[in-house]
Amino acid sequence: MADARYDVLGIGNALVDVLVSVEDAFLSAESLPKGGMMLVEADQSDALYAKLGPATERSGGSCGNTMAGLAALGGRGAYIGKVRDDAFGKVFRHDLTTLGVAFETEPATDAAPTGKCLVLVSPDAQRTMVTYLGAATELTAADIDRAAIGAAQVTYLEGYLFDRDEAKRAFIAAADAAHSAGREVSLTLSDGFCVDRHRDAFLSLVEDHVDILFANESEITSLYQVDGFDAALQKVRGHCQVACLTRSEKGSVVLSGEEVHVIDAEPVARVVDTTGAGDQYAAGFLYGYTQGLDLATAGRIGSIAAAEVVSHYGARPDADLKALAAKVLAA
Amino acid sequence: MADARYDVLGIGNALVDVLVSVEDAFLSAESLPKGGMMLVEADQSDALYAKLGPATERSGGSCGNTMAGLAALGGRGAYIGKVRDDAFGKVFRHDLTTLGVAFETEPATDAAPTGKCLVLVSPDAQRTMVTYLGAATELTAADIDRAAIGAAQVTYLEGYLFDRDEAKRAFIAAADAAHSAGREVSLTLSDGFCVDRHRDAFLSLVEDHVDILFANESEITSLYQVDGFDAALQKVRGHCQVACLTRSEKGSVVLSGEEVHVIDAEPVARVVDTTGAGDQYAAGFLYGYTQGLDLATAGRIGSIAAAEVVSHYGARPDADLKALAAKVLAA
Repeated sequence: MADARYDVLGIGNALVDVLVSVEDAFLSAESLPKGGMMLVEADQSDALYAKLGPATERSGGSCGNTMAGLAALGGRGAYIGKVRDDAFGKVFRHDLTTLGVAFETEPATDAAPTGKCLVLVSPDAQRTMVTYLGAATELTAADIDRAAIGAAQVTYLEGYLFDRDEAKRAFIAAADAAHSAGREVSLTLSDGFCVDRHRDAFLSLVEDHVDILFANESEITSLYQVDGFDAALQKVRGHCQVACLTRSEKGSVVLSGEEVHVIDAEPVARVVDTTGAGDQYAAGFLYGYTQGLDLATAGRIGSIAAAEVVSHYGARPDADLKALAAKVLAA
Repeated sequence: MADARYDVLGIGNALVDVLVSVEDAFLSAESLPKGGMMLVEADQSDALYAKLGPATERSGGSCGNTMAGLAALGGRGAYIGKVRDDAFGKVFRHDLTTLGVAFETEPATDAAPTGKCLVLVSPDAQRTMVTYLGAATELTAADIDRAAIGAAQVTYLEGYLFDRDEAKRAFIAAADAAHSAGREVSLTLSDGFCVDRHRDAFLSLVEDHVDILFANESEITSLYQVDGFDAALQKVRGHCQVACLTRSEKGSVVLSGEEVHVIDAEPVARVVDTTGAGDQYAAGFLYGYTQGLDLATAGRIGSIAAAEVVSHYGARPDADLKALAAKVLAA
């Protein structure tokens, strides 16, 4: 097997986040389940946007956030996803490539604009997401660059792709390309509601295709339809090579065969916005993992990256993550 | 004179800010004068953008920021400025109109995209701005809605408009419309370099057309080509009805005929980004002034709004300014 050109190649829905503060009453009035992610059409997105206050725009997309975090830590990343050749598409491309992430997917030149995610941040720092996929829906198996995937140690996929059949096919094609090249495949379940929508498909995917799984408590209990974290932990053990189960302020558990690590969350002075916590945990873990660090240290880097991102507004790191991780690990 | 429908109508360059952190060495390497505003063409803007790290997008434009602040305080505002009918143009429009600011100027439907301002924030919280005006250059005297201006207590203009002859004509047309309706005209000098470029025009404008002038120390000393703040203060006294001279952490001085008020800056725990400090001072002062409050209290509200905006990233208020001002004034 040739040396890997990339540590991680990520595939996901390319989106620009529109961040807005809202009160809990607004979520209730709009029947938006707090903490979840809803897919909507353009007109629904526009109608909701019109009801929101002034916003801040930042590049987003779960997997895009993870690749930005990986690059901020010093990892070598590549990204596959679809934007339109419009202003938001240029913003998305700039924000990844300026970090050194390779992003070769051609933009769409007609039809829908670059996708956007309305991120509604509540006073308790939780985020509720309303996503219009836009150009992201144009991602097909034809965009799956098998050579790039073969050149990456790990190919990382976001579960949100499962919401569309065509993206699901791209997903399977990517996993196949990675394994054919002797590489590993990683998946994040993305969202408890997303798992509900596609449980059987996810179960067979984890069984057949996934080497490294990321899930939070609600996602993993939903996947196995069990009550409680420990029951889910017993199920996932042995189901894939490595499983990283995240639990917000309770930290995370990393499992691999007989190995089990219980990792504390990094302390955070004030949680401002939880958007991107899972994405950055995955970034930190995959960075450590692809550097050949032990699983516990990789998990620790995940905790450090997650703690940084929840301490400010937005889903990608603001601080110098590389320096931050070095400092915390040295302490 | 009919009752005013608006407290303030603002006219300015409609821009979206692209906020990025940079080191001082970057500014030197790019020969960008720290703290200033430079106008550039599209290709220069793109070339600089390509060298910058990941960014955050927020609606900006000096006068747009002021109108957002006025609305956040509870004032009734209207805005005249030119965007394109593109994604950034929609962002700009949303962020003003959602606050209740009337913004009726038709967007441009061809030629240049919505203007953008690369805001380079240094570690010491200073900002250096590189502006591509884009569609903002399409603003002409034909966009000056005389009826709306006649319905506003104060028409507020940004000095940056003076960088283009066509906008300067729009500017004069607006001042004329306001005075014909028995209303007042306010101007902010915007930038020391901008004053240097147009000193004579600004001097006759202040003499003939301006009732309420805003300027910071470097702008007012540049306007009168004097050394030191006090010398400038003696010159501006009597030159217009009201002058508000801002001095960052030293506070501000408000002059009107025999009246002089020296107003302290509000304390700020940590200055993060000075972008928008002058814009928000003007918002606070004009809010108080149009509510009929005395000049000292109006200046105090200006200080409160400026202190809020420098305590976070971005040029428009994040906090509930109305509640904040009420609390500080009551204390």
